[in-house]
Amino acid sequence: MTKIVVCAPSGPFERSSAAKVEHFARDQPGITLVFHEQCFARAGHFAGTDAQRVAALVACANDPDYDAVWFARGGYGACRIAEQALARMDETARGKAYLGCSDAGYLLAGLYRNGIGRPVHAPMPVDVERADGNAAISRVFAFLAGDCTTLEPTLDGRPAAAFNLTTLAMLVGTPLMPDLAGHVVMVEEVSEHLYAIDRLFFHLAAAMPAMKLAGLRLGRVSEVPHNDRPFGADAEDIARYWCGRAGVPFLGRANIGHDCANRIVPFGARDVWGLAPTGDAP
Amino acid sequence: MTKIVVCAPSGPFERSSAAKVEHFARDQPGITLVFHEQCFARAGHFAGTDAQRVAALVACANDPDYDAVWFARGGYGACRIAEQALARMDETARGKAYLGCSDAGYLLAGLYRNGIGRPVHAPMPVDVERADGNAAISRVFAFLAGDCTTLEPTLDGRPAAAFNLTTLAMLVGTPLMPDLAGHVVMVEEVSEHLYAIDRLFFHLAAAMPAMKLAGLRLGRVSEVPHNDRPFGADAEDIARYWCGRAGVPFLGRANIGHDCANRIVPFGARDVWGLAPTGDAP
Repeated sequence: MTKIVVCAPSGPFERSSAAKVEHFARDQPGITLVFHEQCFARAGHFAGTDAQRVAALVACANDPDYDAVWFARGGYGACRIAEQALARMDETARGKAYLGCSDAGYLLAGLYRNGIGRPVHAPMPVDVERADGNAAISRVFAFLAGDCTTLEPTLDGRPAAAFNLTTLAMLVGTPLMPDLAGHVVMVEEVSEHLYAIDRLFFHLAAAMPAMKLAGLRLGRVSEVPHNDRPFGADAEDIARYWCGRAGVPFLGRANIGHDCANRIVPFGARDVWGLAPTGDAP
Repeated sequence: MTKIVVCAPSGPFERSSAAKVEHFARDQPGITLVFHEQCFARAGHFAGTDAQRVAALVACANDPDYDAVWFARGGYGACRIAEQALARMDETARGKAYLGCSDAGYLLAGLYRNGIGRPVHAPMPVDVERADGNAAISRVFAFLAGDCTTLEPTLDGRPAAAFNLTTLAMLVGTPLMPDLAGHVVMVEEVSEHLYAIDRLFFHLAAAMPAMKLAGLRLGRVSEVPHNDRPFGADAEDIARYWCGRAGVPFLGRANIGHDCANRIVPFGARDVWGLAPTGDAP
């Protein structure tokens, strides 16, 4: 039995969405799932004040009743509370998995930097509102049950990490940024102009040599807004160009993104987590 | 007589706009103004390829016929070419003023870092298309003629610099970032959600202690897009909050922004440029 608790360190979650996820989870063998009440709190942009979000995240992390902390959604706000929350996590927090993506990447980064638990880039409860959202949700449940067919297929012997591109660019140089030396880093983006993606890569490229990455993979870049003129290059051209300038191997694409096909990327090395090679069930 | 040449290191400029600026400049005593042909080149998002933009910028900077290089507009692209262009600037380039704002901030930063010429945060030719655009254009001409009433009124004995917020956040940690120790830094923003502004400040706040700023001033934050929920704080609240977290004095507002009231901020200290105290004509 894997016991999952959901909290919302960024934007607020809807009760109607939570009901759908709970309903779906009820039919999944080996899973129990609880939404922390803080998911539904509201304070301006956020799911409650910074203090409320810290308190809920720390309560979930330090509660021995749960095996996994699942971040309800992105939407911005985790970076404001991550340091404070991490400082209050105890030994119990170190034993569990933390799953999410998008804005939750600030927490995955900070957890990884501090060696707390097992950060996992994964679909989130909010995906239940997408078409085929249950496929994303059940991928998380299957991963927690040890099913390695849920993993990003390019994962190999090298340690990996995955981020939203904006999130990674904003993490650079902050107290949340983990050591990614030797890692294959995957980035995805949504709802950003190509010029903004080029600009984020400009910023990352300056940091990349010191990061000593094994290489970079590009996930999906979706819902690019219409601009008044074509950029003149696509997202993969942009990633290749800046990897070239930074001297970092561009390794191709990754099957991650703001969509239901988003495959799972546990931070770090597969063997550390006891995961079998890709494609084999455990 | 001040001889100004305009080039476009970011987005392309319109010939019709150039004609308006030229027409207005013709009536200004002591000013001659020329648009480099590269302003009208187009390559995808940019005013010509990276190579074309580097060549034009270096030609303008190194040409002893001109006293000032004025950047036609923002729009993204200067960061791609700045390092290459700066490396090719010669002694002539060190004797002149460079004026612009928004995306041109990457160049102002790199010029300032490398001690090349006199970088100035100022209106741009593109402002001619705004209502009351001639007021912005004539402010630049008056500044070049030594009129200190054009300056940002809060400038005092301390060195200063001004940037678009996104530009400054993307500059941090790059080879273009100048030493801003002891500086009053002013930031302005346009067309960004308040959550994005908060996120940019999160990123900057991590760098600010090492920057050893004298303080930060907030310019105008304009054209904030509508969001599905209110952020819960305004731009000044956000700037104050992150300055507080970073331990940097928040000094109040500055009269800069993406608009025709945008006052002029020469990088560095007033006395270095021989500028009289604010409000006095020279």
